[in-house]
Amino acid sequence: MKAELITIGDEILIGQIVDTNSAWMGQQLNLLGIEVYQVTSVHDNHDHILKAFAEAEQNADLVLITGGLGPTKDDITKKSLCEYFETELVFNPEVFEHVRSLLSSRSVVVNQLNSDQALLPANCTVLHNSAGTASGMWFECNNTIFVSMPGVPFEMEAIMTEEVFPRLIQLGITQSIVHKTVLTIGLPESMLAEKIEKWESGLPDFIKLAYLPSPMMVRLRLSAYGTDKSVLEAEIDRQVKDLLLLIPENVFGFDDENLGMVIGRMLVKSSKTLSVAESCTGGNISHFITSNAGSSAYFKGGVVAYSNEIKNSLLEVPDDIIETYGAVSQQVAEAMALGALKALKSDYSIATTGIAGPDGGTDEKPVGTVWIAVAGPAGVKSKEYNFRHNRERNIIRTTQTALNMLRTFIIKDNIQTQ
Amino acid sequence: MKAELITIGDEILIGQIVDTNSAWMGQQLNLLGIEVYQVTSVHDNHDHILKAFAEAEQNADLVLITGGLGPTKDDITKKSLCEYFETELVFNPEVFEHVRSLLSSRSVVVNQLNSDQALLPANCTVLHNSAGTASGMWFECNNTIFVSMPGVPFEMEAIMTEEVFPRLIQLGITQSIVHKTVLTIGLPESMLAEKIEKWESGLPDFIKLAYLPSPMMVRLRLSAYGTDKSVLEAEIDRQVKDLLLLIPENVFGFDDENLGMVIGRMLVKSSKTLSVAESCTGGNISHFITSNAGSSAYFKGGVVAYSNEIKNSLLEVPDDIIETYGAVSQQVAEAMALGALKALKSDYSIATTGIAGPDGGTDEKPVGTVWIAVAGPAGVKSKEYNFRHNRERNIIRTTQTALNMLRTFIIKDNIQTQ
Repeated sequence: MKAELITIGDEILIGQIVDTNSAWMGQQLNLLGIEVYQVTSVHDNHDHILKAFAEAEQNADLVLITGGLGPTKDDITKKSLCEYFETELVFNPEVFEHVRSLLSSRSVVVNQLNSDQALLPANCTVLHNSAGTASGMWFECNNTIFVSMPGVPFEMEAIMTEEVFPRLIQLGITQSIVHKTVLTIGLPESMLAEKIEKWESGLPDFIKLAYLPSPMMVRLRLSAYGTDKSVLEAEIDRQVKDLLLLIPENVFGFDDENLGMVIGRMLVKSSKTLSVAESCTGGNISHFITSNAGSSAYFKGGVVAYSNEIKNSLLEVPDDIIETYGAVSQQVAEAMALGALKALKSDYSIATTGIAGPDGGTDEKPVGTVWIAVAGPAGVKSKEYNFRHNRERNIIRTTQTALNMLRTFIIKDNIQTQ
Repeated sequence: MKAELITIGDEILIGQIVDTNSAWMGQQLNLLGIEVYQVTSVHDNHDHILKAFAEAEQNADLVLITGGLGPTKDDITKKSLCEYFETELVFNPEVFEHVRSLLSSRSVVVNQLNSDQALLPANCTVLHNSAGTASGMWFECNNTIFVSMPGVPFEMEAIMTEEVFPRLIQLGITQSIVHKTVLTIGLPESMLAEKIEKWESGLPDFIKLAYLPSPMMVRLRLSAYGTDKSVLEAEIDRQVKDLLLLIPENVFGFDDENLGMVIGRMLVKSSKTLSVAESCTGGNISHFITSNAGSSAYFKGGVVAYSNEIKNSLLEVPDDIIETYGAVSQQVAEAMALGALKALKSDYSIATTGIAGPDGGTDEKPVGTVWIAVAGPAGVKSKEYNFRHNRERNIIRTTQTALNMLRTFIIKDNIQTQ
């Protein structure tokens, strides 16, 4: 079964919003074994929308349309759907009641714009939107299914999860796809490719490998296609085991895991805790760790020591060290890490100090100069990095590098104490 | 001039990465007055790529292609380009030298995969990639320009900025587009629409209005189309002034501004400083503030008090208050805000404490219950919220709400002291 995703709305084309809906739908459809053939973003324009529908109908068995359905939209989407499926808008009292009760729970009085949301094409199956006022619409036409949904991510996700997926599963799915993503860190793409070249060329034909580089890491995605899911899973598992033997230190996790989760698991296992002392990362490491559910089990907290005063008052970094070596120095990074251990009473800590940019660089310490320290039962370890990118990338790279430094530090600790 | 964006790569279609490149390109092209007609994401598949090229050539004057050019890609993209433009790959010694020197600066030895990156179509103009090893390629065909670039965002951005835009500007651009986005907070979409209904219906035909809702805020985008840029700008300015009179308290900024920048500007103007004490937001408020360049001028730092112990030891929240009222309470939020003022010696502070989820909720305090406090020269103010969403959205909503609470708090302070 092939799907095409169509997003409607000028906001994507002028870059005011990023199309996260398509990524979410692509992921979910893949889990159901439905291949996404194409993603197309078109204008809020009647002719353009109809053209996209007609092309999608030729390519795909399932066309998922998002956007263009809010209370203040011109409703070009609904008009275009009526024209394409040769029908007209009719008032749906159940939808009206849903809109009314949802808005009253938010203390909003229904106005004309809201009640117009109960006008829906006569020949569609209306899909309940538990998270908002714009209903989903399901059409069938010449063996192709069209589903139109609002573009607000959590409303689309509610309709997909509660209405669309159950119907798709009922229709029966044939081909199986099994994906496994191996997360690596510490090797650039071309060096990684060389290290695993033989393994890669030995992969069976039904397994495809993709290299997905991102700052500081390369994800290796294996995709197996076939009819028997258990055979595919067994072969993927076997291949991943072989791969692990080639690059044991570089693999830190799988699939949707992140470094924070992996570290969290190690800490929980050994009943240890973590704290952070951040200067140049400005809270991003804490945020990254606490984005993971359950992080309160091992994360005690952090200090964002953006000013030198705070480095001294909360982390007890001696003023004379800051004066002698500068805030961006090995001495200050290590003192921050040790200060965090003490002030936040944790077993491990991470500290960052650097020049994120765009200003503040000097010849000696240009923008992107960063000192990272990690501390724990085995003492303190620190390293200098020169990222030299823009502010956003310097913050991301420092965060990922610091977490990976802690990961290897904990692994060595565990080996030594075993 | 019309542009179409084509992204090549299975990773977008299976949702493993979000297509941020198209959003960036859409924004930049709009600033140059080039309309993006469509965005299309296709598979790493030869036939599919050629079909997309042919369709794009019919619709667009400019086709920007990203993806499918890394050292480990199968080079389906380059082969497809050669076939479409009836040419073959030739070795480019300058590009080889660039690849070699770039890799040696990263202490990587050139291998076959890297040197293959110097093989480029004979009839294209090679575009220098200052940020990586995969060159851009510029083709002209029947009055349509095709540009192929790697999919790594900062490499694509380097080629666009240094090579593509200067060439496009030289070609001359005709139509002018002026966008202005008004950022509002505190009114849901339908209530906002009612408040500004008359103003909206009075807009001239050449100005389009779009409502862009996101968590806690609605952005209103005005787009004016015409030939004389100064006329468009003057009319947009006039309309925005009228709009401000209708919803003065809800507008917090314009265009790419965010609440952190707006608060930063107010603080700098009055030479005041800020600190934060975060529990449920786990560092996200600090991260949000320090993402803005120059934030060290007004942001002293923060404490991520994830455990109650830290709330007491670093923020001096009395243990008996935590015991009596619970960590998620008005009393603790206010004590955290006042504790931050004292411990971090700032003029203003923000504090958050709540249950982000998915676990930790009770009947009395369900997931999404949050107390936010702000403190400053005029004292302390706090409010309870019930977001009841998932972890990620609760963190984002708490962050935005807390920043807006501080914004209005500072405005009232300034009015009172004037």
